[in-house]
Amino acid sequence: MAEIKSLTCVDCGHGHQAELIYKCERCEGSLDVEYHSEVNGEEAEAAGKKESGIWKYRSFLPIAPNSEPVTLGEGNTPLLRMPSLEMELEQSEVYFKNESANPTLAFKDRALSVALTAAKQFNVEGVVTASTGNTGVSAAAYAARAKLPCKIYVPKKTPNEKLRLMKIFGAEIRLVEGNFSDAYLMAAQQAETTGWFNVTSTFLNPYAVEGNKTIAYEIHEQFGDVPDWIVIPIGAGPLLVACFKGFKELQLAGKTSKLPRMAGVQAASCAPIAAAFENGLEEVAAWKQPIATVASGIADPLTTYPKDGTRTLKTIYASDGCGIAVEDDRMLHYQKKLAKEEGIFAEPSSATAIAALEVMKRKGYLRKNESVVSVITGHGLKDLMSIQ
Amino acid sequence: MAEIKSLTCVDCGHGHQAELIYKCERCEGSLDVEYHSEVNGEEAEAAGKKESGIWKYRSFLPIAPNSEPVTLGEGNTPLLRMPSLEMELEQSEVYFKNESANPTLAFKDRALSVALTAAKQFNVEGVVTASTGNTGVSAAAYAARAKLPCKIYVPKKTPNEKLRLMKIFGAEIRLVEGNFSDAYLMAAQQAETTGWFNVTSTFLNPYAVEGNKTIAYEIHEQFGDVPDWIVIPIGAGPLLVACFKGFKELQLAGKTSKLPRMAGVQAASCAPIAAAFENGLEEVAAWKQPIATVASGIADPLTTYPKDGTRTLKTIYASDGCGIAVEDDRMLHYQKKLAKEEGIFAEPSSATAIAALEVMKRKGYLRKNESVVSVITGHGLKDLMSIQ
Repeated sequence: MAEIKSLTCVDCGHGHQAELIYKCERCEGSLDVEYHSEVNGEEAEAAGKKESGIWKYRSFLPIAPNSEPVTLGEGNTPLLRMPSLEMELEQSEVYFKNESANPTLAFKDRALSVALTAAKQFNVEGVVTASTGNTGVSAAAYAARAKLPCKIYVPKKTPNEKLRLMKIFGAEIRLVEGNFSDAYLMAAQQAETTGWFNVTSTFLNPYAVEGNKTIAYEIHEQFGDVPDWIVIPIGAGPLLVACFKGFKELQLAGKTSKLPRMAGVQAASCAPIAAAFENGLEEVAAWKQPIATVASGIADPLTTYPKDGTRTLKTIYASDGCGIAVEDDRMLHYQKKLAKEEGIFAEPSSATAIAALEVMKRKGYLRKNESVVSVITGHGLKDLMSIQ
Repeated sequence: MAEIKSLTCVDCGHGHQAELIYKCERCEGSLDVEYHSEVNGEEAEAAGKKESGIWKYRSFLPIAPNSEPVTLGEGNTPLLRMPSLEMELEQSEVYFKNESANPTLAFKDRALSVALTAAKQFNVEGVVTASTGNTGVSAAAYAARAKLPCKIYVPKKTPNEKLRLMKIFGAEIRLVEGNFSDAYLMAAQQAETTGWFNVTSTFLNPYAVEGNKTIAYEIHEQFGDVPDWIVIPIGAGPLLVACFKGFKELQLAGKTSKLPRMAGVQAASCAPIAAAFENGLEEVAAWKQPIATVASGIADPLTTYPKDGTRTLKTIYASDGCGIAVEDDRMLHYQKKLAKEEGIFAEPSSATAIAALEVMKRKGYLRKNESVVSVITGHGLKDLMSIQ
């Protein structure tokens, strides 16, 4: 493995030992796992030779070499070319990274597999999470596999299928009045009073975030190079930030000289990060307007942690990328198109990563001859009510 | 590829050219793809080097080398060890092959990917299928990807989630009074009058059946050897038969000297093949007793094609295997156990592959120190109503 140097604050740079902490002790900034030295290519390949899925890349993960991964076979998802979209958009190369092919049908499994493996290393007595649905399902499944109790705080309007799944995996569910940010606070309190591991999929848990990096290594291997653009639906944005970190690691390891441009996509009625980008701001503010979108998986107003949005915004700027807001009718249009013309049933939040392409073209970000990988983050079957 | 020698009747041995046929022209027996020469290991590895999932093994498939696969990234599903079951059953090595991690959440995707690729080769105008649910969903998705119309005949009591998915993928659905065998007849008639490709997942379509073989190559690679037992839920049984054929091909290619013993599992209230095995018969008779099981995915009475069951029974005998019938309460017990203790949510039909293990031990088929791979054929999310 790459040995952990510190959990480093992304705002003030203060370093902390790898313990059960979620915030900078000085400025409350979010933490990023920093390693002693970069992993070189040979080491990396040797380390993961016998593993499959994300654990093929375990040398890039903050997990001790003797730890048994808590795994359900996550990762190793298909990268598929989409001819019907290439035609409609007059775009030369459009691919999907189909993360709905993960064990609990969402990209979250990458994060939760690493988080639950870390939880076992820390010998915690349980895990807790806030969730709009997908993280809860994934946390419940991986906690079951790890034989740890799991408590999940979700907004009341979370899709019923997702609640059913959490229960089936044996988790304890707490329905919260309000939105994801309200659930977030309650999960944080529970973790503080009990010492349970908080695996909420924002930037709170640095181990979970590291799991998301593995999508970059897979895209690099499957695409055979680095695509010009990677388009990711974002709430707070840990997948986007971790994906870019993964590509930077590949660059440092000498595996590529190029980095992709990152596009972060939000629903127009809950777009704190996309709005900040649109207005050329340096900081993201919490979203105060009414939220009315079927994209429940990314409807995060960042109420008490707008700095998480800023971390994602900075990554978008660093990659020369963009923030995009899409309307519900366009995401539903592409959700249907994707199903009827390509045989992929994405949840509405994921369809934003397709709907964004026409906006990116119109605004001049995406050029005709560029290659683009859109990440389908979750399966439509977990939110059947969203499609008519 | 292995060049097709003939579509050979499994009953009378009569050979046919590789055309759009589904039955022996002499005796109406089912057809098996026979190749000119066995593929050797090196050829196989060279052919599929750049492909992923089942198409890594395209040299073993009856598809022309210049054909573009109709693929959604099927195959390459996780093989996972199940410690909680090893403990409960006092069994040394229990693994699951998690086929619910396929693009439409069932093993059928292996068959339908090959079938739709063949459909494109034959230049058909559409595809038709009978289905208890999973085949229909898979056929609809792959037909969408192939840009071909798809018509599906299903029993009226097919789970609602599966019907919704077929519609979302743009298929035309015909609800049929009666059971799967009734739907089977109507699909066959439609194929005959229109010339559409019948992709019904019994033994009707020899191309589809060949796709199922790929599960054997994957188990062999992932397990690192051949397990003592492979346990598969069966309706007519094409997955079991094709899996064993795959292992025999590996043996002929010099990749292994051992073959696995095959256990076919059915629900006790619809168990034509398991009952024939139990009674030591050479032939399977259609099931005439009332069917009352939550395992809708395998509830096939074989009404007009009991010979399909005989083909599976013969494979069970040839492998020194067994046929097992399990009660609904045991499959539901293991469905819950699997979810709460291992984080895998299988549909009831799939949970039979776990419930069978205790029966196999009790009857003396499965010994304590033997390794066993149970195939989880489909995801519970497509049949949420089955779990309370």
